[in-house]
Amino acid sequence: MPSTTLAALGGRATAASKVLATAGSAAKDTALRVAAELLERRVAELLEANATDLARAQADGLAATALDRLRLDDRRVGLMADGLRQVAGLPDPVGEVTEGSVRPNGLEVTRVRVPLGVVGIIYENRPNVTSDAAGLCVKAGNATMLRGSSSALESNRAVVAVLREGLAKAGLPEDAVVLVEDTSHATAVEFMQLHGVIDCLIPRGGHALVASVREHATVPTVIGGDGNCHVFVDHSADLDMALSIVVNAKTQRPGVCNAMETLLVHRDVAGAFLPRAAEALPGVELLGDAATRAVLPGIAAADDDAYATEFLDLRLAVAVVDDLDGAIAHIARFGSRHSEAIVTRDLHSADRFCREVDAAAVVVNASTRFVDGGELGLGAEIGISTQKLHARGPMGLRELTCLKYVVRGDGQVRR
Amino acid sequence: MPSTTLAALGGRATAASKVLATAGSAAKDTALRVAAELLERRVAELLEANATDLARAQADGLAATALDRLRLDDRRVGLMADGLRQVAGLPDPVGEVTEGSVRPNGLEVTRVRVPLGVVGIIYENRPNVTSDAAGLCVKAGNATMLRGSSSALESNRAVVAVLREGLAKAGLPEDAVVLVEDTSHATAVEFMQLHGVIDCLIPRGGHALVASVREHATVPTVIGGDGNCHVFVDHSADLDMALSIVVNAKTQRPGVCNAMETLLVHRDVAGAFLPRAAEALPGVELLGDAATRAVLPGIAAADDDAYATEFLDLRLAVAVVDDLDGAIAHIARFGSRHSEAIVTRDLHSADRFCREVDAAAVVVNASTRFVDGGELGLGAEIGISTQKLHARGPMGLRELTCLKYVVRGDGQVRR
Repeated sequence: MPSTTLAALGGRATAASKVLATAGSAAKDTALRVAAELLERRVAELLEANATDLARAQADGLAATALDRLRLDDRRVGLMADGLRQVAGLPDPVGEVTEGSVRPNGLEVTRVRVPLGVVGIIYENRPNVTSDAAGLCVKAGNATMLRGSSSALESNRAVVAVLREGLAKAGLPEDAVVLVEDTSHATAVEFMQLHGVIDCLIPRGGHALVASVREHATVPTVIGGDGNCHVFVDHSADLDMALSIVVNAKTQRPGVCNAMETLLVHRDVAGAFLPRAAEALPGVELLGDAATRAVLPGIAAADDDAYATEFLDLRLAVAVVDDLDGAIAHIARFGSRHSEAIVTRDLHSADRFCREVDAAAVVVNASTRFVDGGELGLGAEIGISTQKLHARGPMGLRELTCLKYVVRGDGQVRR
Repeated sequence: MPSTTLAALGGRATAASKVLATAGSAAKDTALRVAAELLERRVAELLEANATDLARAQADGLAATALDRLRLDDRRVGLMADGLRQVAGLPDPVGEVTEGSVRPNGLEVTRVRVPLGVVGIIYENRPNVTSDAAGLCVKAGNATMLRGSSSALESNRAVVAVLREGLAKAGLPEDAVVLVEDTSHATAVEFMQLHGVIDCLIPRGGHALVASVREHATVPTVIGGDGNCHVFVDHSADLDMALSIVVNAKTQRPGVCNAMETLLVHRDVAGAFLPRAAEALPGVELLGDAATRAVLPGIAAADDDAYATEFLDLRLAVAVVDDLDGAIAHIARFGSRHSEAIVTRDLHSADRFCREVDAAAVVVNASTRFVDGGELGLGAEIGISTQKLHARGPMGLRELTCLKYVVRGDGQVRR
């Protein structure tokens, strides 16, 4: 009976979370470093488990891109180990006192950073998410319940076994990392509704997963990932700088959420900039509105669907806008509130863009690709949130914690 | 067709939220002060609308306590006006730069406090929630969609009309405060699923409302209100202090979420403390476990249900525990993670209690009743969250905002 199993697993994770919540940094870091070493030492076993998954996935007809995400090799396992070591080296967020004051009645009020408790991660077929997510959760003092896809089950089992061994060797409860091995849809839904167990559920995957979590989850969630990001080239832009930013935002890694999906160009510089952009983006398929196609007659027409699409590919929608207001309106209509950039020399335009564009991150004269936990100084990230509650933008260790009020008195009562 | 109406209303609120988001403090404060004045000037009209609601509610057989919550009078309208003026006097949270740094590549990264956007409030029959909640939302630069109960519809219409007039007189869009006048259950569910419109949904009401939001909401929510709060009297406690805190926490206002519902007493002081507590709580019905009843033989037996119940009344469950661990375990099992207090002279016990008890607020040697936005220095509160994401404990103006990354460069691209 899956429900008993999931509830039992949740109970074990909850019990472990109480120990992790007050564990010292040294023990948590040891757990991560030992796990990193074990990942490297057991790479043969991990690849064998992964080969089982790959063979079954291939037989099931999984698409080539999905197979690639599922695949582990020496390098990828090494990156997983490096990731754990990097997280071990970050400052522990737990225990930070973020503010404190004494009330007129003498009460001392502080807010202290504490772990969330149990973090649920629901994800697809990338086995590195298993160690990346669990590593961050452990460092922030949380227990983690991991629910990966069925296609990666053997790989995830192997990675989780290593993480649990790391915890045990550090004197911490193994159940701080548990894997939901029942990968049925019904259990996934039950997982999303594990109220009283899961304090925060984070989906890591594509639109279908996010939509399912939005529909079914009754536990608190942090949802993100949608990145329909724009770069607006203002009439006052340094066009050389704009070109370099546009090429970087589109092509440096087109398959990620902070890549540019639509280029907006001020009409005054469309004639000068668009031919240069087209030339600098040789492998990129462009789709444009009428004004764009007047300058670049060879390209396909872009409709609203194109502007609403996160291509995650070497495709780029282009629109010519009348002015800053036009750019802001286009972004308000089609953007996913992830990362939006302007290239401009005009201070007023930069300020207005920053103030009026509603997004997790607004960027002036730099590539959208910088909106990333590592690049913004968070050390590592568990994802990028496009919701506004709790975490907005890259989620690092701090976003895996919450604040607790600690109130100390000497007998005060309320009148 | 309700769905068109609600979508249209949401569209208007969204449009207004864009204006509010960049509105200056002066305009927002003017809107609140004008509304406060109008509330007082139009008290006769408000009471007339309220009388219509009361008459219908009485005919519908609404319970006396519910009728009392619905009822407005001169004093209550005056308090609503005072509340708006108080919020107008608080510092504006919008625009605060919470942190900033320069990355090694020269990128300047700041996090700036911005409004959430559109805040949905779903509540029951207290018309003062209409002005209290909308006032806080406006001050924090948000548009608000209010969905109160059908029983308070005329009262809410009258209050919302005043708030909208205040906005208009301050040159702000009236649609920053809109009332969902269709109070059907179907529309309530649709409201909870207004994805893309509502950035944060806050229920203010009892268990049934919170459960319904938990079940149906697909928009981000902040849920709270459950307050099964404990006071633990340690063996080292100053028993005079403990008595004063226990009486205050139980009786100063028994119907609110930060009142004590269960008293835990260390077995070493049970004999000395419990008779004094019983004597000091003359109007309070006590329910106890076997050890408590050995000291206080006249009281009823408490079962698990009693320990799990938020009485919100002059009833108190009592349990004798072996030690601090017993108290922490009892709270972990039955508490609602709201506010938990210890009375002790022992530093180690105080520290362990603060660290190991999982609650929005832990309190040492003071009444649980202090866990309140006003008492903790937030100025005013829109509710008390018992979830861990985004807001934990009292939610003030700051919790009605979020942080936006602002990244400024001079042409940086990612390698």
